[in-house]
Amino acid sequence: MQVSNSTGIVTPQCVHIDNPLQLKSGTLLDSYDLVYETYGNLNATKSNAILICHALSGNHHIAGVYADNLKQVGWWDNMVGPDKPIDTNKFFVIGVNNLGGCHGSTGPTSIDIKTGKPYGANFPIVTVEDWVTSQVQLANYLGIDQFAAIAGGSLGGMQALQWTLDYPERVRHALVIAAASKLTAQNIAFNDVARQAIITDKDFHGGDYYAQDTLPRQGLRLARMLGHITYLSDDSMAAKFGRDLRSGKISFGYGVEFEIESYLRYQGDKFADQFDANSYLLMTKALDYFDPASAYGNNLSAAFHAVKSNFLVLSFTSDWRFSPERSRDIVKALLDNAINVSYAEITSSHGHDSFLMANKHYHQLMRAYMDNIEI
Amino acid sequence: MQVSNSTGIVTPQCVHIDNPLQLKSGTLLDSYDLVYETYGNLNATKSNAILICHALSGNHHIAGVYADNLKQVGWWDNMVGPDKPIDTNKFFVIGVNNLGGCHGSTGPTSIDIKTGKPYGANFPIVTVEDWVTSQVQLANYLGIDQFAAIAGGSLGGMQALQWTLDYPERVRHALVIAAASKLTAQNIAFNDVARQAIITDKDFHGGDYYAQDTLPRQGLRLARMLGHITYLSDDSMAAKFGRDLRSGKISFGYGVEFEIESYLRYQGDKFADQFDANSYLLMTKALDYFDPASAYGNNLSAAFHAVKSNFLVLSFTSDWRFSPERSRDIVKALLDNAINVSYAEITSSHGHDSFLMANKHYHQLMRAYMDNIEI
Repeated sequence: MQVSNSTGIVTPQCVHIDNPLQLKSGTLLDSYDLVYETYGNLNATKSNAILICHALSGNHHIAGVYADNLKQVGWWDNMVGPDKPIDTNKFFVIGVNNLGGCHGSTGPTSIDIKTGKPYGANFPIVTVEDWVTSQVQLANYLGIDQFAAIAGGSLGGMQALQWTLDYPERVRHALVIAAASKLTAQNIAFNDVARQAIITDKDFHGGDYYAQDTLPRQGLRLARMLGHITYLSDDSMAAKFGRDLRSGKISFGYGVEFEIESYLRYQGDKFADQFDANSYLLMTKALDYFDPASAYGNNLSAAFHAVKSNFLVLSFTSDWRFSPERSRDIVKALLDNAINVSYAEITSSHGHDSFLMANKHYHQLMRAYMDNIEI
Repeated sequence: MQVSNSTGIVTPQCVHIDNPLQLKSGTLLDSYDLVYETYGNLNATKSNAILICHALSGNHHIAGVYADNLKQVGWWDNMVGPDKPIDTNKFFVIGVNNLGGCHGSTGPTSIDIKTGKPYGANFPIVTVEDWVTSQVQLANYLGIDQFAAIAGGSLGGMQALQWTLDYPERVRHALVIAAASKLTAQNIAFNDVARQAIITDKDFHGGDYYAQDTLPRQGLRLARMLGHITYLSDDSMAAKFGRDLRSGKISFGYGVEFEIESYLRYQGDKFADQFDANSYLLMTKALDYFDPASAYGNNLSAAFHAVKSNFLVLSFTSDWRFSPERSRDIVKALLDNAINVSYAEITSSHGHDSFLMANKHYHQLMRAYMDNIEI
């Protein structure tokens, strides 16, 4: 079998954590599974480990393909692999599916052993801090005392940042990409429209749709359509779709007329078949709640007082979901604490999605930073 | 009875137009009603008439209050009235509910005399051009050969612009405010998410929900929540709501937590009780279709070749729905045709909604322009 992907075939693994997890919400989770993948080899001193945290709809499958599905390429395959910016010839890279997700780690679709049924609406809301706490358990299991780096884009960047606050000794470098130190009212507003679309779907059944053998498909579809608008820039949508008509002419009806409608509905439909609505809800809540400065009188510099890691912060010019201004806030607060931070605002027309793309300048900067991490 | 409103009590009127209307979609509408209001007095030479066109969710009730509801103030009451920028001591101002609307003019909720039932999904999609054609009938009925001015914000501005293209001899001045000559892919995308929310609501019943004695309430609510995000600016939402919590603390649930959620859900609920979903659908389509340059090889300057009216074009700095750049496109195309155009970009933090607000600079410019219209 020939595999064209440079990382090749990968296999997810699973660890069962029996150490109870005290969540920020007050709920105690007795035990849980974390599904993860690794790429490259852990060196003898365990000094070359990189943790990559995923964003809203991501998962542990970062690079490579699966033996039973050679087309299922990891979401950051252009960044992670042999000779790629995050070079698996040098680093041992770990991707983990977040707690509460729907790709193998314990979440709303998992069976609650206490009831023998899926958690559904009973699965607790988790926070970025909770994710970090659970990821520490994975690190302990793998015998990694300190990560060479923790990296992530968007919500993934928030996790990398949180690691440096909660476990400053365990992260040498944090790569915080297209992220923000907190959501704006507008960010929260978009999330709430998405949540309301799901929750008011007749097939949501208060979150216990599994028992009804149905899915809040329409709500999740709308949430994803809306999300996509915020991931792209006005300019990239104009360049890619403009006002192009699917059939070349207006039909005076409510079917697909403009190409942009076709694209969004397709993305919505695809996502609704693949992602769990309860997971989507709790991931958006984790985003809304993230605000490390809130415990420090909204003073981000004060919140960073214990940070010891070095930072690479990157933003993209056309990103209006988490604009460069939000990254600059992080950089300024790090500088207030005399933290070693590299920052760049990368010119890209692709909006928030830029962090997933193979932009040359972006990859050069990532490579330069990663090449210079000592292991 | 004391009425504090300066325009005072107004009474809507209705005209039945028996002249068949050939719609752009190909459908022929045999006859229709238009509901309208007037403020001030038409002078003897009928040279002081102003038509004000409404936006997506507006109607004919522009100024004043109703005898049976003194709190129901017209949507542009701060602009129209005695001694106001559009001064009804000088002008005879007309507001008309658009065809296809849900405030009295013939639309989806009206009874189709052919079936004895509401039109519902059978009501044809109408365009900005169709609205202008129907408004001409109202002008004829009132004996107005030429308007001193036609004004509107947002979709209303598009109608004012269309008038100058289709009836250049009948409009001396066009006031095009917070508008655009066509929607972008992003604009269409937001509209399509709103439409899909309505159409996939289980209570939509293919648009014939009246017969089911129900309403696609959740879909219309979502559409309005989403709309509101695009009417406000990121900055105005941050200033007004920020990350303020309704109860002062996070509750780890899906009820209202942030103030912005409370605001949006309230706006959505209120709108869902007041507006007809089929009307909302067709109004968004009229927005999407509007593109006068499309018949001229996407050359807006060419599309304006027959324009004779004078123009006032206004935009607002924080409007990201129809940004100042879109107004500048209109101004440039007018200048290419040596049309007399005044333009200003008004500093406002209130986003697209600025056109409804009593911004001092805005009102000064409107007053200056209107004062200098000869009647």
